[in-house]
Amino acid sequence: MVFILLNYKTFDEGTGQKSVDIARACRDVSESSGIEIAVAPQFADLFRVSSSVDIPIFAQHVDGIGSGSNTGQVYARCLREAGATGSLINHSEKRMTLADIERSLLSLYENRMRSVVCTNNVATTAAAAALSPDYVAIEPPELIGTGVPVSKANPGIITDSVEAARKINKKVIVLCGAGISKGEDLKAAIELGAGGVLLASGIIKAKDPKVALEDLVSLI
Amino acid sequence: MVFILLNYKTFDEGTGQKSVDIARACRDVSESSGIEIAVAPQFADLFRVSSSVDIPIFAQHVDGIGSGSNTGQVYARCLREAGATGSLINHSEKRMTLADIERSLLSLYENRMRSVVCTNNVATTAAAAALSPDYVAIEPPELIGTGVPVSKANPGIITDSVEAARKINKKVIVLCGAGISKGEDLKAAIELGAGGVLLASGIIKAKDPKVALEDLVSLI
Amino acid sequence: MVFILLNYKTFDEGTGQKSVDIARACRDVSESSGIEIAVAPQFADLFRVSSSVDIPIFAQHVDGIGSGSNTGQVYARCLREAGATGSLINHSEKRMTLADIERSLLSLYENRMRSVVCTNNVATTAAAAALSPDYVAIEPPELIGTGVPVSKANPGIITDSVEAARKINKKVIVLCGAGISKGEDLKAAIELGAGGVLLASGIIKAKDPKVALEDLVSLI
Amino acid sequence: MVFILLNYKTFDEGTGQKSVDIARACRDVSESSGIEIAVAPQFADLFRVSSSVDIPIFAQHVDGIGSGSNTGQVYARCLREAGATGSLINHSEKRMTLADIERSLLSLYENRMRSVVCTNNVATTAAAAALSPDYVAIEPPELIGTGVPVSKANPGIITDSVEAARKINKKVIVLCGAGISKGEDLKAAIELGAGGVLLASGIIKAKDPKVALEDLVSLI
Repeated sequence: MVFILLNYKTFDEGTGQKSVDIARACRDVSESSGIEIAVAPQFADLFRVSSSVDIPIFAQHVDGIGSGSNTGQVYARCLREAGATGSLINHSEKRMTLADIERSLLSLYENRMRSVVCTNNVATTAAAAALSPDYVAIEPPELIGTGVPVSKANPGIITDSVEAARKINKKVIVLCGAGISKGEDLKAAIELGAGGVLLASGIIKAKDPKVALEDLVSLI
Repeated sequence: MVFILLNYKTFDEGTGQKSVDIARACRDVSESSGIEIAVAPQFADLFRVSSSVDIPIFAQHVDGIGSGSNTGQVYARCLREAGATGSLINHSEKRMTLADIERSLLSLYENRMRSVVCTNNVATTAAAAALSPDYVAIEPPELIGTGVPVSKANPGIITDSVEAARKINKKVIVLCGAGISKGEDLKAAIELGAGGVLLASGIIKAKDPKVALEDLVSLI
Repeated sequence: MVFILLNYKTFDEGTGQKSVDIARACRDVSESSGIEIAVAPQFADLFRVSSSVDIPIFAQHVDGIGSGSNTGQVYARCLREAGATGSLINHSEKRMTLADIERSLLSLYENRMRSVVCTNNVATTAAAAALSPDYVAIEPPELIGTGVPVSKANPGIITDSVEAARKINKKVIVLCGAGISKGEDLKAAIELGAGGVLLASGIIKAKDPKVALEDLVSLI
Repeated sequence: MVFILLNYKTFDEGTGQKSVDIARACRDVSESSGIEIAVAPQFADLFRVSSSVDIPIFAQHVDGIGSGSNTGQVYARCLREAGATGSLINHSEKRMTLADIERSLLSLYENRMRSVVCTNNVATTAAAAALSPDYVAIEPPELIGTGVPVSKANPGIITDSVEAARKINKKVIVLCGAGISKGEDLKAAIELGAGGVLLASGIIKAKDPKVALEDLVSLI
């Protein structure tokens, strides 16, 4: 079961009404290919997307807090009521302390939401796996946004991450990110042991995101 | 022109569908009293509230970033497209660096949104006023959430803040917060020179928020 | 081999010349008892202590940075040249991101310094153990500074942490902290599987730190 | 009275014993030129420098905390006992929240230490001036470490900063930084209204720091 997660970041191409358009493209390609594609729009677009498109929706971040005095923070229950069924955690553009990662995972678990912890190398992937998230997404920071796929630039980091995670917690699925956008990148990632990919600019900023998604899943 | 801003924080009483119910109560009391009441729900509830209730809506925080690789961050343009027309900045539960406060103010200004910078004492109120936001909201942290109104516990901090802000920038309006929930608190704040108040738990967690709001505006 | 690490925090009782006095008491008790006692004074006192007392010295924090443009940050090589031979990392009063913990560990390793990663529960202890530090110090935050020893209040957290760490990396030694100050506390910690303890106020603020230390080691 | 502050950052060229060598060069050039030159070595080198060289010593950062449970944080009193008589605050490589800048200034004031708040543009310089530090050092981040002097690249930012600070607090002295290393840069800065400069790599990494310093002060 390959899993694709599309991170919208704060790109204008995925902001506001466009967040819905991209989600529709993801849904269409998911239906025609049979591969699960989830979207991670900005917080303020979650409700808009979930009201319009039937597709798995993730938040880009969640704080490990509950009901209370937490102005400006991101509460898992609020995300779920807005239609999210999972969240990224500890993305390289939103790093968290180790203690906060663990708290956020608890809050997702309590709300029956899926969790993706982002990491930067094999050692931190092992550490994240010890916290038992659903997924760990390894993204070498130096490749993010470059268009150079990690599966080509550094295939060893994927196989080593898969092995390190498996040793600690067999249930954790390793995704890989950074530079992935084409069908051959996804195919290579799966062959290296990844359970899916985390993508962003390669699809969001594509001339036609739907065409880009069709290419992405074409070799699976 | 008195201005009331209701911060929902992450209270369950203002999460999901309840965010709309409270906004409706605010709208009703605003219409009957003629006093401007704005609401600040959680990010993921902004679109839900703006789709249902015609009332000024603020975000609880905004990052000074633009379109791009800013996973998990809060983009002013996205807030505006979700229906927000302003934002809190630098709340005591979400402190920001001085450089980031200034960047966030710019991003609000560029999106024609109103800005409320929160501060903790007279000196930081003066500093915030130098950045030319629309409002500075002074909230002594030791009083937040206590139910002890700043207008009683420390009236001098309001008058001194108003004077300090005025000396630096006459256009900046000083709000006061912390412990405010009753009509006499609001009246006292206005008499001390404040242009309005920032409230939270006193209304959000009231048995009947609408009744609490009616009491709040009853002496103006 | 029991290991005792005394964290001075920023207590006046361990600041400036007093940092040397406490280090001398530690050295004396270490020599008479044969138990290793290390001290962790403030950064600016490291050189003063290392110039006067021959005892293992730790820093209270280190950033995972190298030579360069890192104003105000803590560079492992500088610590070592000031006489430190190890450092705390990720103390509850100085939490770090997961990626930064890993970088700091690398910088300590490269400088041949010992590492103690602080954690708050069993899950984060397992995660920290996956990063292969020399020690993990589990400190339930709710007990820090209370005088209630973790070995009495929550012995299960020590045994579970020891087991969780061992499963992931047999070489990692688990210390325990929070509320430890007496001989019976240290004895209980060792019997629960800890390799030593991390202490602070119980000794630093004792009427006579040397007497307190003598009591601490009296049952080993 | 021109003031020169040399920030060592974490350059190897100013770490350990080399921190003393550079301080000696500063003292010699200060004595021969009559211009005040202060040094800002790393925390762990402060005592080493103050024990060996009679020169004004600044820390690179200070937290606004007191005696207590503040592991890994930087306590003004400890800095002063290690020989520092001032500190940088809010450097671009160590940004602080507005509330923390104000607290740090208080702690320096209570310890009779001089304060330099770093800022990035005219608006934040005005805000910092409202907090009444001794100095504000304006450093456009895009020029730091480039060798392109701010006095040439953007002279307007200096004159505007001087004017903005003066309007708010006449006693605050504006320093300028970023790319300054030569005599003509310092001369230009002074002519634009600055009271001195903040320098780093241009001197620290110079082949011969003393020669570089002699050039720096040669046109005053």
